Amino acid sequence: MIIIPNNEANEPFVNDALMDSSMSFRKISLYGRSLFITNFSSTENIEYIPIKDAMVISDGLYSRKVKKDSTNVTVGNVKIGSGKLVIAAGPCAVESEEQLMEIGERVKEMGADMLRGGAFKPRTTPYSFQGLGVKGINMMKKVSDYTGLPTVSEIMDLSYYKHFDGNIDMIQVGSRNSQNFALLKFLGQKGMPVLLKNGMGNTISEWLNSAEYILSGGNGNVVMCYRGVRSFEDSTRFMMDSGAIPVLRERSHLPVCADPSHPAGKREYVETLAMAAVASGTDMLEIEVHNNPDEALSDAKQQLDFMGFSKLIKKVRKLKEIVG
Amino acid sequence: MIIIPNNEANEPFVNDALMDSSMSFRKISLYGRSLFITNFSSTENIEYIPIKDAMVISDGLYSRKVKKDSTNVTVGNVKIGSGKLVIAAGPCAVESEEQLMEIGERVKEMGADMLRGGAFKPRTTPYSFQGLGVKGINMMKKVSDYTGLPTVSEIMDLSYYKHFDGNIDMIQVGSRNSQNFALLKFLGQKGMPVLLKNGMGNTISEWLNSAEYILSGGNGNVVMCYRGVRSFEDSTRFMMDSGAIPVLRERSHLPVCADPSHPAGKREYVETLAMAAVASGTDMLEIEVHNNPDEALSDAKQQLDFMGFSKLIKKVRKLKEIVG
Amino acid sequence: MIIIPNNEANEPFVNDALMDSSMSFRKISLYGRSLFITNFSSTENIEYIPIKDAMVISDGLYSRKVKKDSTNVTVGNVKIGSGKLVIAAGPCAVESEEQLMEIGERVKEMGADMLRGGAFKPRTTPYSFQGLGVKGINMMKKVSDYTGLPTVSEIMDLSYYKHFDGNIDMIQVGSRNSQNFALLKFLGQKGMPVLLKNGMGNTISEWLNSAEYILSGGNGNVVMCYRGVRSFEDSTRFMMDSGAIPVLRERSHLPVCADPSHPAGKREYVETLAMAAVASGTDMLEIEVHNNPDEALSDAKQQLDFMGFSKLIKKVRKLKEIVG
Amino acid sequence: MIIIPNNEANEPFVNDALMDSSMSFRKISLYGRSLFITNFSSTENIEYIPIKDAMVISDGLYSRKVKKDSTNVTVGNVKIGSGKLVIAAGPCAVESEEQLMEIGERVKEMGADMLRGGAFKPRTTPYSFQGLGVKGINMMKKVSDYTGLPTVSEIMDLSYYKHFDGNIDMIQVGSRNSQNFALLKFLGQKGMPVLLKNGMGNTISEWLNSAEYILSGGNGNVVMCYRGVRSFEDSTRFMMDSGAIPVLRERSHLPVCADPSHPAGKREYVETLAMAAVASGTDMLEIEVHNNPDEALSDAKQQLDFMGFSKLIKKVRKLKEIVG
Repeated sequence: MIIIPNNEANEPFVNDALMDSSMSFRKISLYGRSLFITNFSSTENIEYIPIKDAMVISDGLYSRKVKKDSTNVTVGNVKIGSGKLVIAAGPCAVESEEQLMEIGERVKEMGADMLRGGAFKPRTTPYSFQGLGVKGINMMKKVSDYTGLPTVSEIMDLSYYKHFDGNIDMIQVGSRNSQNFALLKFLGQKGMPVLLKNGMGNTISEWLNSAEYILSGGNGNVVMCYRGVRSFEDSTRFMMDSGAIPVLRERSHLPVCADPSHPAGKREYVETLAMAAVASGTDMLEIEVHNNPDEALSDAKQQLDFMGFSKLIKKVRKLKEIVG
Repeated sequence: MIIIPNNEANEPFVNDALMDSSMSFRKISLYGRSLFITNFSSTENIEYIPIKDAMVISDGLYSRKVKKDSTNVTVGNVKIGSGKLVIAAGPCAVESEEQLMEIGERVKEMGADMLRGGAFKPRTTPYSFQGLGVKGINMMKKVSDYTGLPTVSEIMDLSYYKHFDGNIDMIQVGSRNSQNFALLKFLGQKGMPVLLKNGMGNTISEWLNSAEYILSGGNGNVVMCYRGVRSFEDSTRFMMDSGAIPVLRERSHLPVCADPSHPAGKREYVETLAMAAVASGTDMLEIEVHNNPDEALSDAKQQLDFMGFSKLIKKVRKLKEIVG
Repeated sequence: MIIIPNNEANEPFVNDALMDSSMSFRKISLYGRSLFITNFSSTENIEYIPIKDAMVISDGLYSRKVKKDSTNVTVGNVKIGSGKLVIAAGPCAVESEEQLMEIGERVKEMGADMLRGGAFKPRTTPYSFQGLGVKGINMMKKVSDYTGLPTVSEIMDLSYYKHFDGNIDMIQVGSRNSQNFALLKFLGQKGMPVLLKNGMGNTISEWLNSAEYILSGGNGNVVMCYRGVRSFEDSTRFMMDSGAIPVLRERSHLPVCADPSHPAGKREYVETLAMAAVASGTDMLEIEVHNNPDEALSDAKQQLDFMGFSKLIKKVRKLKEIVG
Repeated sequence: MIIIPNNEANEPFVNDALMDSSMSFRKISLYGRSLFITNFSSTENIEYIPIKDAMVISDGLYSRKVKKDSTNVTVGNVKIGSGKLVIAAGPCAVESEEQLMEIGERVKEMGADMLRGGAFKPRTTPYSFQGLGVKGINMMKKVSDYTGLPTVSEIMDLSYYKHFDGNIDMIQVGSRNSQNFALLKFLGQKGMPVLLKNGMGNTISEWLNSAEYILSGGNGNVVMCYRGVRSFEDSTRFMMDSGAIPVLRERSHLPVCADPSHPAGKREYVETLAMAAVASGTDMLEIEVHNNPDEALSDAKQQLDFMGFSKLIKKVRKLKEIVG
């Protein structure tokens, strides 16, 4: 249950009323407002809450019932959710400083807003390339400083956070950790923006509840990144539901990103999936781009080359103008 | 195995060669060419086919290996697949002549190209409205004659065909009959255009093989209509995979339609799903539109009203100009 | 809405009351009782039904609310649902009289109760063996007469019914026709027992509603045959949910069959799937058995040989004694 | 690539040969043997490995190609995989010492072999009961000391390990962390037995690769616990595929556990799912049992009461005797 004082002046009264009640509660500050969270979930007993100066909401902090207007998340000099399509591009995995510098410079020239790159890689088998780790993070920092592009990179365990802090601008939580609640709670304690992917076997409700783990810690800088779900179809890698974005829009104020690279599984389909995502209203795209995709150490089949990315970015920018 | 003579002049030689071989074969005429079909599927034994004047193809008639250029399907005065977005609109079920006439006139005014309407309705339970049957077909004919819009309506059993013949311009095979092979074979013997939906639990490969049942009878007038598939997500009715259209495009020359109404399940999402489908390259849209959706006898929640359709058609037409 | 007179004597009064009301209804005879069916589905308006001598049930005829005790379905000399495990065995497809006779005699010796065999085969592609058709039906009849085993065979269209009538003891509706409502309604008009498989993309509710199409015509001889559903798992052909049987048991009085051959997709797994189905309470098993599986014209990988079937039948019979 | 010296005496020669080659490798000790692991995955280049005294295997350590005989995992005085059905029972969440002591004593009396109980709970929303944490672990230790039952409890992050070490006998990795590779790698460095659940959206191959993360660190004490997967069926909570156990058996030497409580979602189905799992060959069952299920702080609907568990354990023990 979320309890929102009608105005800041009422906050102490609400606090007192909750103190007087028998219920345990927690106060957080989110999007510039003070909110009270109780673990009291039953709506039947709302009347027992001795509060007249507040709204009582039984939906999540992610919900438009709590915050009507769409949220912007700021990452460096980039604002996600403000109307302009934000495009993060870069390699699946950071492989070397030269590689990353070349990719960073080229995607910037072509109009990318952010640099993506994996330093810690969650690979299905332990024998696949696991990423450069801390070295990769340092390369991201260097290329970011040089190009001016803010960065996004995936975290795999909360103990890695110290490497990200101050070096990476936005932390990505991948599909496999989308219900790693220990990690999500930890990130809720930090202010750093989070790009939260959906679990490949999760519903939208479960995904929004994963976001709630971050928001309820007081960190409202969450962007929901849709990367498709598991299905029986075997001609693509994951199924990318065009219904996901309108459902998210309706149920949540959080900005939305789409990752067309993973569901495509094959570079020939990436542009079409990106177009569909923009047409259905995404605020951001995250695209895998590699200087030499066929030789990539991971996801070789789905990464775009520079020519493919250049073509894609022109088309999606033009489309965004139309769909607004 | 499909055997295609290199040119018409060679056809008798190919025929003779196949006669001389021990293999059983069948000759059909498709897209203006003569083709030979054998039930011989193993590619290992191609060398035993005594043919030098033909191509031997172990993929389906739906494949771009058999026909490289995209196919157009003509329905009345409408050409599906020719570059212009074709929009079929109308009620889920025909409910009365007045209702259908009003809808037909209004969607025509707004720019629809075809009229859709169900006379025989495959409803999950036997106690739901089952459609007006033959009467509904006759109303479709009347409204078509009046408005000039060609019609599409669903068939549920091959024995109903006599009612469609001469009255309806395009036969729809619904999701629940997408692997009703007796029906598909029957339609393969007729020339009437078929709008073939995917089975809700079928892969794209299975769906293309359903089309093959029609094509291999000599009827090449098949449009593939994607209506989403089953998934674990419960916030929409079916999952609409944005990967489906690019996969179909790559693997088949047949034109593609998208039905955003059924996967949406809720009218608020229909426009967004339609936009995504157009952005990913659909040739046609089939949209449920009702004069009074809340009172509709079926699919009440997902049918658009006239205002909703008017808004949708403007947006998708504008989008089509951009995506080409 | 199902309206069941409290006793036979009250039936005319209930009939009169319904006549007096404005509602349309239909009387059927099912399981030796007279029932009235209305298309009136809203439970809110029950009070408007002017009936005091009847139960008004808003669930299906398949439901235990309509019939509390489990139903037995009699096929020839076999009773399905009576406590004894009924086993139907035989080839995926009838290939020749010799083949079928050999299989029929052998599976009978080993203890099978019924003979299964496909004459009309719903194959994913039109170029796969489509079955022997009417000839296959006649072979089934001949082997049944010789061995005394009642038969079950799949129908693909209602127009084929004439070939089954008098020749086959139980009609199978396959997964691909599980929502072919024209066929189901037709079979509801006949008394012949039906083995109704679930659609590969259907929920249990949808499947029970497919049974309702048959029951509501007055044919109560329906056995629900679970054959697995579509999923993302690729190491078997379909996913066989052990929850399906207890859910069916709870929600319906109809007897339950399990088909372990199709979900297994591979003969090595068939016995284990059969054991699981018996342990979860199935009344019947349908097993594909072939005299020479590796050379079978269809489903070669999943058919058991005689040795495999002999081993399976001993194990499942022994298990059935324990689970009761 | 796994390289296994033909006998211990050859191990130094294999080591030298690998040193001479340009390839990076790692030596581990697993199941009493020395193995070499290279990140070299292509089987094409096996000839370049200068080894004649070893087997080169391109499958995982989980595979029967690496270890033919089934593995036993010892947890306290219990041996999992040795033929006797091991049953772990206890509450979803530890709620108090009294509750846990009562449950521990009662399930022991009824024949349970191990005590399960969650101290750290991965709940879909942050407002649900999150478990007693370290206190819950201490209660598990106390009840285990008193009853003599070894314990299994879920870990949610590698930083919690210190609380488990010495207090809990077997660490459970839940569905939501089944691809938390940082955690899996960490557990591979420890010797403690791991009960590894499948991710709700993962294939069996992916799950086995998760086990590989643990095995490749040198910890061979992994039990695979199947808890069902996501599907479109809504009458149970997860779909429990009876094919999963035979597939695991065929592909891996690791022992198998089944969790019927989570897929059932409803206590009425738990026994049937447990029976199916035993009939399909599980080595172990993990069952949620509560002293007062309707008042449970989590998973109230699916936990068994003592009477239900008493009935279940008798039936599955009897069944196990038959199926062997």
